[in-house]
Amino acid sequence: MAHLMRAEIGEQPEVLRRIADEEQRAVQTVAQQIRDHAIRAVFLAARGTSDNAAAYFKYLFEIQNGIPCGLAAPSIVTMYRAHLNLHGALVVGISQSGQAPDVVEYLAHARANGALTVSITNDPESPLANASHFTLQIRAGAERSVAATKTYTGALAVIYLLSEALRGQPDAPQRIHHAAALVEQVLQQTEPRLQEIADRYRYMRECVALARGVNQATAQEIALKLIETCYVMCKAYSVADFMHGPFALIEPGFPCLLFAPDGATFATALESASKLRTGGAETILFASDAEILKLARTPVPMPAGAPEMLSPIVYAVAGQLFAYHLAVARDLNPDQPRGLQKVTKTL
Amino acid sequence: MAHLMRAEIGEQPEVLRRIADEEQRAVQTVAQQIRDHAIRAVFLAARGTSDNAAAYFKYLFEIQNGIPCGLAAPSIVTMYRAHLNLHGALVVGISQSGQAPDVVEYLAHARANGALTVSITNDPESPLANASHFTLQIRAGAERSVAATKTYTGALAVIYLLSEALRGQPDAPQRIHHAAALVEQVLQQTEPRLQEIADRYRYMRECVALARGVNQATAQEIALKLIETCYVMCKAYSVADFMHGPFALIEPGFPCLLFAPDGATFATALESASKLRTGGAETILFASDAEILKLARTPVPMPAGAPEMLSPIVYAVAGQLFAYHLAVARDLNPDQPRGLQKVTKTL
Repeated sequence: MAHLMRAEIGEQPEVLRRIADEEQRAVQTVAQQIRDHAIRAVFLAARGTSDNAAAYFKYLFEIQNGIPCGLAAPSIVTMYRAHLNLHGALVVGISQSGQAPDVVEYLAHARANGALTVSITNDPESPLANASHFTLQIRAGAERSVAATKTYTGALAVIYLLSEALRGQPDAPQRIHHAAALVEQVLQQTEPRLQEIADRYRYMRECVALARGVNQATAQEIALKLIETCYVMCKAYSVADFMHGPFALIEPGFPCLLFAPDGATFATALESASKLRTGGAETILFASDAEILKLARTPVPMPAGAPEMLSPIVYAVAGQLFAYHLAVARDLNPDQPRGLQKVTKTL
Repeated sequence: MAHLMRAEIGEQPEVLRRIADEEQRAVQTVAQQIRDHAIRAVFLAARGTSDNAAAYFKYLFEIQNGIPCGLAAPSIVTMYRAHLNLHGALVVGISQSGQAPDVVEYLAHARANGALTVSITNDPESPLANASHFTLQIRAGAERSVAATKTYTGALAVIYLLSEALRGQPDAPQRIHHAAALVEQVLQQTEPRLQEIADRYRYMRECVALARGVNQATAQEIALKLIETCYVMCKAYSVADFMHGPFALIEPGFPCLLFAPDGATFATALESASKLRTGGAETILFASDAEILKLARTPVPMPAGAPEMLSPIVYAVAGQLFAYHLAVARDLNPDQPRGLQKVTKTL
């Protein structure tokens, strides 16, 4: 494997296990802080891939802990110099490098304006870590590929541990180990299928990535991977939002990635798969359920048994591998996306 | 003008003036409720075009009133049956029809779980209005085009009045009248230019729509209009997010809409315009500043003097007209997007 991106995709089971084994204590501390501060709302500051981890945070915390969450718009602080009242709020900054200046500035503003602040980063010595009260580490080791992979699923694992700790579930680390085993299954059993189908999409110009609920993060993240590494114009939608307007894009052959794991959103994914089929879309469908896979032009069978709230980790890895093998099929170097550097500094 | 969409675009000055003249009292009542309830966070439930109005709400309330805002994910309630604690929160549902079942259910859940609830809708007898404590009316008259136009800018005007009322600014209605006059200038002076440039984009397959800050809503809304009426795959980005990955899409000729009104975000828009030019992008640039317009392949001069917080109304109209004339240039009927109906009901 000559590419950094593929090597780092392969490291994910190891990173997940390391987080489960080493980060639980820090997570418990932060969970206790959230309880002590009687936190009533969470706002998340992040960019790029980390913004997709933030979407996972929102769904997970709202579902598991009933605390409403929203994504922050850093320009409110960096451009408009607004003064937010953040008493009673938790503000979480997510950045693998911890360098994003606008995220750092937002966290500093939040801390000065009453928020409890937590950073989730791969670098505990970074400006973001220094700006926040508490830091949770992604423990992924250096990530050298421009397209983030292991720091994304690592951030998800940290978020999962925190959400479970907050509601007093002690066995979350074991479940991360289970997710790591499922990721290994994806690497062993699903990757050959993804390699096999890549050629079919050699000349795909655009597509959409669809999911619902907690895997909305997956759709967003894989859309970003396809954009960065394959220059495919891919837009992610909640299947509900997709029906409000963008469904007009569907014509025979229009490619749609659909992430449809088992769980509370499965019925709506099944309905969407059926509508896409009727509309003549070319559906690339990631699922373990045999029934829904029959509705796809290109089924991608996934390992069964992923707990719904951890399915975004397992499905993200399959999506990363699809983007990776598609980049290779297009004779692109996924490690060197044109116009990008590893650390992007926006204000 | 044979198309409903164009007729309704043209009604916008009248709708804006009606809102300014007739909705101020209801707005004052809701502002007082927000004060009385000591609201500390706002969550916004909406789909499609209304979701873009929600983005405007978030920026405006955070900038002008310092109350942190987030977008709601209705599936948390409709699919996952989560129990959110929304005491001390304002929950706002936005839907022109007031029919969206998931938005209605989210509002009902919020009301039952401690939130102050407000609906912004064009139908004060709708299920959404009935589900909420208070209703603000868009007063746009029946909207018959599938692609929403006047109900979008109308929702923005209602939101502007509410934000200004909350901070005790009494002259907001006059400023809406000023915005209405600027919209008339767009219809008179900018529309011929947009009609003239449409042919150039007859075969455009994909593009991005860029902005920063409060006009993030504009970029999102015009992306949706281009998707619905022209079947152009258009994705909206904050220019900051765009630099974190999606900039890889830029190759010579890649079309980028950039909304760059005067104000706090102008410097970052100028920097982005320069980077896009260096990357060889084809920039379709909406601005009133002569300097930035020189950086565009296709400059679209806009009326000067739009107050920054009202610029999303003025710029949205120009974007709607671009989408409309592009649809006509592509021999499409913008009133009948394939696969869509006026009211979309998702759960």
